[in-house]
Amino acid sequence: MTASGTGPSDAALRERAARVIPGGMYGHLNAALHGPTYPQFFVRGEGCRQWDADGREYIDLMCSWGPIVLGHRHPKVEEAAARQLAQGDCLNGPGPVMVELAELLVDLVPSADWAMFSKNGTDATTQALMVARAATGRTKVLKAHGAYHGADPWCTPSPAGTTPNERADLIEFTYNDLASAEEAAARADGDVAAIIVTPFKHDAFEDQELADPEFVRGVRALADRIGAALVIDDVRAGFRLDLRGSWERYGVRPDLTAWSKAMGNGYAIAAVTGTDALRDAATTLYSTGSFWFSAVAMAAAKATIETLRDEDGIAAMEHAGRLLRDGLEEQARAHGFTVRQTGPVQIPWLSFEGDTTLEKGMYFSAACLRHGVYLHPWHNWFLSAAHTEKDIKQALEGTDRAFAETRAHFGAG
Amino acid sequence: MTASGTGPSDAALRERAARVIPGGMYGHLNAALHGPTYPQFFVRGEGCRQWDADGREYIDLMCSWGPIVLGHRHPKVEEAAARQLAQGDCLNGPGPVMVELAELLVDLVPSADWAMFSKNGTDATTQALMVARAATGRTKVLKAHGAYHGADPWCTPSPAGTTPNERADLIEFTYNDLASAEEAAARADGDVAAIIVTPFKHDAFEDQELADPEFVRGVRALADRIGAALVIDDVRAGFRLDLRGSWERYGVRPDLTAWSKAMGNGYAIAAVTGTDALRDAATTLYSTGSFWFSAVAMAAAKATIETLRDEDGIAAMEHAGRLLRDGLEEQARAHGFTVRQTGPVQIPWLSFEGDTTLEKGMYFSAACLRHGVYLHPWHNWFLSAAHTEKDIKQALEGTDRAFAETRAHFGAG
Repeated sequence: MTASGTGPSDAALRERAARVIPGGMYGHLNAALHGPTYPQFFVRGEGCRQWDADGREYIDLMCSWGPIVLGHRHPKVEEAAARQLAQGDCLNGPGPVMVELAELLVDLVPSADWAMFSKNGTDATTQALMVARAATGRTKVLKAHGAYHGADPWCTPSPAGTTPNERADLIEFTYNDLASAEEAAARADGDVAAIIVTPFKHDAFEDQELADPEFVRGVRALADRIGAALVIDDVRAGFRLDLRGSWERYGVRPDLTAWSKAMGNGYAIAAVTGTDALRDAATTLYSTGSFWFSAVAMAAAKATIETLRDEDGIAAMEHAGRLLRDGLEEQARAHGFTVRQTGPVQIPWLSFEGDTTLEKGMYFSAACLRHGVYLHPWHNWFLSAAHTEKDIKQALEGTDRAFAETRAHFGAG
Repeated sequence: MTASGTGPSDAALRERAARVIPGGMYGHLNAALHGPTYPQFFVRGEGCRQWDADGREYIDLMCSWGPIVLGHRHPKVEEAAARQLAQGDCLNGPGPVMVELAELLVDLVPSADWAMFSKNGTDATTQALMVARAATGRTKVLKAHGAYHGADPWCTPSPAGTTPNERADLIEFTYNDLASAEEAAARADGDVAAIIVTPFKHDAFEDQELADPEFVRGVRALADRIGAALVIDDVRAGFRLDLRGSWERYGVRPDLTAWSKAMGNGYAIAAVTGTDALRDAATTLYSTGSFWFSAVAMAAAKATIETLRDEDGIAAMEHAGRLLRDGLEEQARAHGFTVRQTGPVQIPWLSFEGDTTLEKGMYFSAACLRHGVYLHPWHNWFLSAAHTEKDIKQALEGTDRAFAETRAHFGAG
């Protein structure tokens, strides 16, 4: 272990990175944000395991912050991608696979009559709002306070480098508080193009919160009443909760959905799906990117979604998530901790009761790292269909030791 | 040939696409924008050739609208990508290759003291403006009227789906008109964060225009005088004109440069490079994406740039471009046309004198298609280092027949 707490290869890479990358790293994978012992650089992934630059192996409970949903190097995805790559990827037009992928989404997702593809989750949320604005001729967007919808100037959680104008068309409400959404709509005085909402509350640094069914139905009714588009930002939860879209279980369908992350099992792809009523508006946009039509990521996405469907990947994730949650609950109790485990079991998070400074959470996650379990102190975790009972059992051996060390460090009570 | 003028496979795919993709296609690869006989779907690329969904082979003078700079399936790029993919792509942190790629850019590009990576050209132009705004604490950005800087709401050429606020921080000037840039700066009354400018004028539907050296030096001096960042949008021209950055030949260095397109020979990657003076500002942003740290595209970019450097790919493109331009000039004259060939020879465009409706250009490019040459009626073309003398000779055989047919169609004079 070096001064930074990470291995010598990681430390050497950080030293070089500090010279040629601002701050040594940026964005959500900046290890400085996670804790001093988090490795910055990774060299390998296989199934539900990852290896850092010093060759240390982890059972991975973050899935690269969401994208890995079937496990690294899943044979069906890699075969589909390799087959497409051997023919062509970035060509003068999309490949037939673009049509097949759009057909697959339209087939699977009841609210999807069409699809458009891009690269980043932010591309998809931004494009969804453009469709809503083009359809309504209105400007304002209602969003929940603290909700993450991407990192473009209009939505990045940090205002650095953004201008007031870029964020002037947003009006905030409180998640799961229908009255606050109604008030936000009233403040816009008829000028609401869209209500954008995550399928559950998964803000960083906070316990997660499932959507209240009354809120879900209420925002749908509100959007209908004021003639705004209801946009579900399913970038983080999509393809993990319900292949039909994350609010289908409530019997509530959005007008537009933004997808990305898990869609291609790590391949860079995002999508907006929408209803027929918004199809004409979507055709009026000029929204594009040099690599948005590349065939390999689309082939990977098609294979990913088909595999999730055919092998019931969501049930596999739920099963692994349930085992993890039950095991952690039992361990926490045994070690004398009261913890809160929130969110869907396959997109879990654990916080320690009263740990407002996240001191215990940081200590616990660092201890997990030492014992070969990669999870996160302030951002929700992700499970994949590659997490078997054996893997979860191994992870729980690591967390058990981490709880014990956390107890030893902080003492009883 | 079907009613649409394209082959039966293409027609069948279009019919399916029309059901599940708004308008059947969107963005810059929407064949409906190029002409009625342009194929929409492509299935294969190899070197400087592409095959459409009906198996028709083209000598490709568009290079997928820029990304393909060494030719499709270049062995060095594919080997580097495959080697990385076998280890891991989208992991819990970037791979060592991210540091190597940043070091390579810092080594090659005199104005680069650091680099940040993303996926889309628009990510890079947007991020560059964020850095400039964070550094200056100012809001306004000067841009040339008609210049393309991406397709986010702040910059997309079509206002559909955008709001006035999203575009309120831009002030326009006229490319190559220094006085107009000075006036634009004066209108901002001291509140200019950045001047963003393409290395030459490559607006669609117009003849291209090389940068006037006085304009180049003038905008640099203007930026210095008003304390704004000079941002070169090298997304389209980067890695084709000069590996050091496209204005190095003028002895003029930007504060920030946006790169993408050719950087990874088709792999999805973009970058911002900047000077030490802007490093601290860059660290304050929260700018990120799920796939921005993926290692495969970085390995591909490193191999692409090293190959361009080691094999003098730019000289190869210039040579091919010169042969093409000379050949087209001779053919045009022989067929009694006056044409204008504008822009750098490796990013060429040809227009017919007096063809304000683009009628001749559309006819000519459709005729080229019939003769196996893929080029574009209203957007600049791109050559790659894979275009050999033999390929250009073959392309010129096609263009010669296309000129003859254009002459036959429009008659003399």
